[in-house]
Amino acid sequence: MTFVLGPNQYGKAENRVVRIYRDTARHEIRDLNVSSALRGDFTDAHVTGDQANVLPTDTQKNTAFAFAKQHGITSPEDYALALGSRFLDVTPAATASRVEVEEYAWDRIDVGGQGHDHAFARRGGEVRTTVVTQDRSGDTPRQWVVSGLKDLVILKSTGSEFKGFLQDEYTTLQEADDRILATSLVARWRYETTEGVDWNKSFDDIRTVLLETFATTYSHALQQSLYAMGSAVLESHPEVAEIKFSAPNKHHFLVDLSPFGVENDGEVFIAADRPYGLIEATVQREGGSDAGDAWLTVPGFC
Amino acid sequence: MTFVLGPNQYGKAENRVVRIYRDTARHEIRDLNVSSALRGDFTDAHVTGDQANVLPTDTQKNTAFAFAKQHGITSPEDYALALGSRFLDVTPAATASRVEVEEYAWDRIDVGGQGHDHAFARRGGEVRTTVVTQDRSGDTPRQWVVSGLKDLVILKSTGSEFKGFLQDEYTTLQEADDRILATSLVARWRYETTEGVDWNKSFDDIRTVLLETFATTYSHALQQSLYAMGSAVLESHPEVAEIKFSAPNKHHFLVDLSPFGVENDGEVFIAADRPYGLIEATVQREGGSDAGDAWLTVPGFC
Amino acid sequence: MTFVLGPNQYGKAENRVVRIYRDTARHEIRDLNVSSALRGDFTDAHVTGDQANVLPTDTQKNTAFAFAKQHGITSPEDYALALGSRFLDVTPAATASRVEVEEYAWDRIDVGGQGHDHAFARRGGEVRTTVVTQDRSGDTPRQWVVSGLKDLVILKSTGSEFKGFLQDEYTTLQEADDRILATSLVARWRYETTEGVDWNKSFDDIRTVLLETFATTYSHALQQSLYAMGSAVLESHPEVAEIKFSAPNKHHFLVDLSPFGVENDGEVFIAADRPYGLIEATVQREGGSDAGDAWLTVPGFC
Amino acid sequence: MTFVLGPNQYGKAENRVVRIYRDTARHEIRDLNVSSALRGDFTDAHVTGDQANVLPTDTQKNTAFAFAKQHGITSPEDYALALGSRFLDVTPAATASRVEVEEYAWDRIDVGGQGHDHAFARRGGEVRTTVVTQDRSGDTPRQWVVSGLKDLVILKSTGSEFKGFLQDEYTTLQEADDRILATSLVARWRYETTEGVDWNKSFDDIRTVLLETFATTYSHALQQSLYAMGSAVLESHPEVAEIKFSAPNKHHFLVDLSPFGVENDGEVFIAADRPYGLIEATVQREGGSDAGDAWLTVPGFC
Repeated sequence: MTFVLGPNQYGKAENRVVRIYRDTARHEIRDLNVSSALRGDFTDAHVTGDQANVLPTDTQKNTAFAFAKQHGITSPEDYALALGSRFLDVTPAATASRVEVEEYAWDRIDVGGQGHDHAFARRGGEVRTTVVTQDRSGDTPRQWVVSGLKDLVILKSTGSEFKGFLQDEYTTLQEADDRILATSLVARWRYETTEGVDWNKSFDDIRTVLLETFATTYSHALQQSLYAMGSAVLESHPEVAEIKFSAPNKHHFLVDLSPFGVENDGEVFIAADRPYGLIEATVQREGGSDAGDAWLTVPGFC
Repeated sequence: MTFVLGPNQYGKAENRVVRIYRDTARHEIRDLNVSSALRGDFTDAHVTGDQANVLPTDTQKNTAFAFAKQHGITSPEDYALALGSRFLDVTPAATASRVEVEEYAWDRIDVGGQGHDHAFARRGGEVRTTVVTQDRSGDTPRQWVVSGLKDLVILKSTGSEFKGFLQDEYTTLQEADDRILATSLVARWRYETTEGVDWNKSFDDIRTVLLETFATTYSHALQQSLYAMGSAVLESHPEVAEIKFSAPNKHHFLVDLSPFGVENDGEVFIAADRPYGLIEATVQREGGSDAGDAWLTVPGFC
Repeated sequence: MTFVLGPNQYGKAENRVVRIYRDTARHEIRDLNVSSALRGDFTDAHVTGDQANVLPTDTQKNTAFAFAKQHGITSPEDYALALGSRFLDVTPAATASRVEVEEYAWDRIDVGGQGHDHAFARRGGEVRTTVVTQDRSGDTPRQWVVSGLKDLVILKSTGSEFKGFLQDEYTTLQEADDRILATSLVARWRYETTEGVDWNKSFDDIRTVLLETFATTYSHALQQSLYAMGSAVLESHPEVAEIKFSAPNKHHFLVDLSPFGVENDGEVFIAADRPYGLIEATVQREGGSDAGDAWLTVPGFC
Repeated sequence: MTFVLGPNQYGKAENRVVRIYRDTARHEIRDLNVSSALRGDFTDAHVTGDQANVLPTDTQKNTAFAFAKQHGITSPEDYALALGSRFLDVTPAATASRVEVEEYAWDRIDVGGQGHDHAFARRGGEVRTTVVTQDRSGDTPRQWVVSGLKDLVILKSTGSEFKGFLQDEYTTLQEADDRILATSLVARWRYETTEGVDWNKSFDDIRTVLLETFATTYSHALQQSLYAMGSAVLESHPEVAEIKFSAPNKHHFLVDLSPFGVENDGEVFIAADRPYGLIEATVQREGGSDAGDAWLTVPGFC
């Protein structure tokens, strides 16, 4: 029997690229975590060890840093598109490139009511993400941009219930009319196109829609909150083809204070670590565009 | 325009199930991290918030713990198969179940040359894994077992080179005749069948083949080491249909001691954190069986 | 030879207490991580195993949750003082109590320009801390409050140098006239008193002083920035007896782009993980008050 | 009012030093995480920013790597003593040095029943530690070695009880006659002397004593197990002056399966994350030697 190389990719992961724009005294900072990978026919590299077709991961790293200057970073998406194209250009054996970027936000430190020119505090909280895939294996080259955010921890202290669920002999859960709903949201959306999108504006607006919809939607379940959030994004953003969520239900259990004669009417909770519910869902346009390889190796969404 | 629910799944993640077998004075321990999920037509739960079709994640948790006793845990695979079947049985709306298990190994504490009856030390190092998927959406129900290990940190202090690679204008890497090769291996393999396999024996033997092949293969690149390891597994284990690897190249850079007049001929290295090469590869049987949904939502491998 | 019990403490660590104030439709949230411990003569518990003097950690946990309602949480410090007193009251063998609190901040989700009544997003970034120690081992009971923050990641993209340092034969570092200075700040300060302090206001103001001083101080070294920050706090806050810092120098190395013919004049950096400089310093009032056991078992500061 | 510099130290943390001994075909590996720090009168560096007395952390890093070759690594303790002495020799302003080392163990990969010459698997599990302090601030120079281990996860599935404890109105805990006892042990012991100790042998033997005593001691409480373990070490190791423990009580709660009609007689547990009991204790020789600054800034033990 013969063995063959199946799906594969290789690259340099987690290049911590920090770019300072210092053309004026008022600096700007972009703080990225960049991972690149190439797919293709790298059979020789695997089977015989011949590396003649392999652009080393070290070279991918060098390019990621050089492009921070040569191409610049106006948005994670624009930078990732440029980087991925470059890797295809110089690697004949590659049929596809994949560039993943995480961006950490920084705020200017406030001094006397004014943001400082060159002193910053990292915002913390959620991380902006993009995964850009460019494929030339078929007749027509294709490219996809899947952007999003992760680690956005949100909570509603009321306006959430969970009841009317299926029961079996292992059911012990009580129905809840009023509970805390909390999650550490991961959302990723696929853009219909890679041209003509204002990446930064789209990101900011979609983030706002997600937060506002979460806040204002009465929740029958986390699934239903997510679906409402996704629908609101598709409704307001024609440039988005579909949106996917991965949302741990971060349980906050009401603590039983009755043994101590203390009432607890939704006031004292224990935030639990594990286990946690995990809800994963996609909201799509009916008859929407083909996703192709857009979601291939997107962490948590394939 | 109308929006629709796309691919989705939900369940309880990371149930930390510890099962003690204490039928004799010589106890046994199985220490698992269990995550279950259901897929199917859960449109109502998402769109209207009606949970009538939803087996709560809390119930999935209860079942995971109850089955640790009622079904028992002879292997992660056997336990996961039973649990996944159960969830399909009691959830008509579900078309598929997915049960993922991580197992942490414990060794008996040695007392005077003998393993103690009921005192254990956690082995540390790698974690055994399985992802079992059962699908009844088509005409014929199907089930897949993808088992493996993760966090197996291995290193060769010689017998590894990297040269003859593709060059471009961003190349600065020097060719290496003798370097450290190290990775934190994740390997997952799909079994051809879910019946008649001795899960524990297969796991132990495959682990041995992986380690021995890594040790004894002269490495032209991490890709080639992985391919050799995968081929050796397929060669010796007909019950394995294919094997996939995700292997960070944990760089150990030779430290330049020449400014201090100190020679460093492969003796002093700095172990780097980020960035790291990341090699992902599959070794398959030529004309092998269809993987179906076996790899769907397998972390790092889809 | 005889062995004796030396310094010891025990308690319940990391109670994740979430308190919702819902007296009006506009909810408030306090999100704490609470750890309590008792010190004293617990010789029997250790030597013979007799637990008659031991208030179980489980009871400490129950009390932490009950007090979230019964005493309430207006500030971490006020809550910790109450909790620590309680434990001393009910545990005759204890000579001292220690309560450590971390607080995670939440912001209201903005909906149409207004903060929502009951929907919140976790702020991320730094964590507010306090360690409250109450000791009755001596003639006069004493209590200390050490408050602070951790994980405040701050960066200056210019206005920082490092030169004129001591040299030896292992020196390779070049002097730097203009570099990035970045740290993940941990600061803890001891209050002179435990009464009459507006804990929330003090915290907010000190945080502002730290940030503003970091931003506006030209830095000759991280040590000097910290000293300036500490002095500014002592200058403006008579209620603070002393302040301690633990500050990793999060190195951002200028990337050498010259092999590619690309200039890099302070624009492209790699953010390194390890190793990192670690600077620890105290700024005190000359002839200041005795710290007693205030810093005993304060993580990173003893 | 004047402010002054209080206790301070600075250095390079987490140098990941890997040393391969390759004098014969049978290689040896030492894998260390090295952190060094200097204490002393560094007032100028803090107050005026003058770095003339400061041996840069970068130089400390260089020295750590160079000494891996020049001095060699026969044990963490021996290497740390040499490194700390060197830093004092070349830094006149320093009154004390502190070198902390963590060591990760590797096993040879077994090939056909024989350990391979140059292929290794990281053992995982516990980490060996040492903190070496050398002080010349007083009339007589002093040095201390505090060695130990951390992250040793151990468990007894029976032979552990907890009862007879103090009760108050917040008590809900039931007495337990037979429970799981588990911890992730951190133990650190101070050696009486820094000369004439066989560091590797002492470490191995003390580790064995700790494990055997844990296994064979019937436990009335984690405190009592720790005290027994510490006493056994002092009993058998005259070179040890005192030993300290930090031991989270990793709770394994019996799962209530009675709602499902399933008995659970100590067979099915849930391993909880937070909160956890945290037990910290010291066992000393009566009238033992003065610890001086041995424990100063030892993580978790001061």
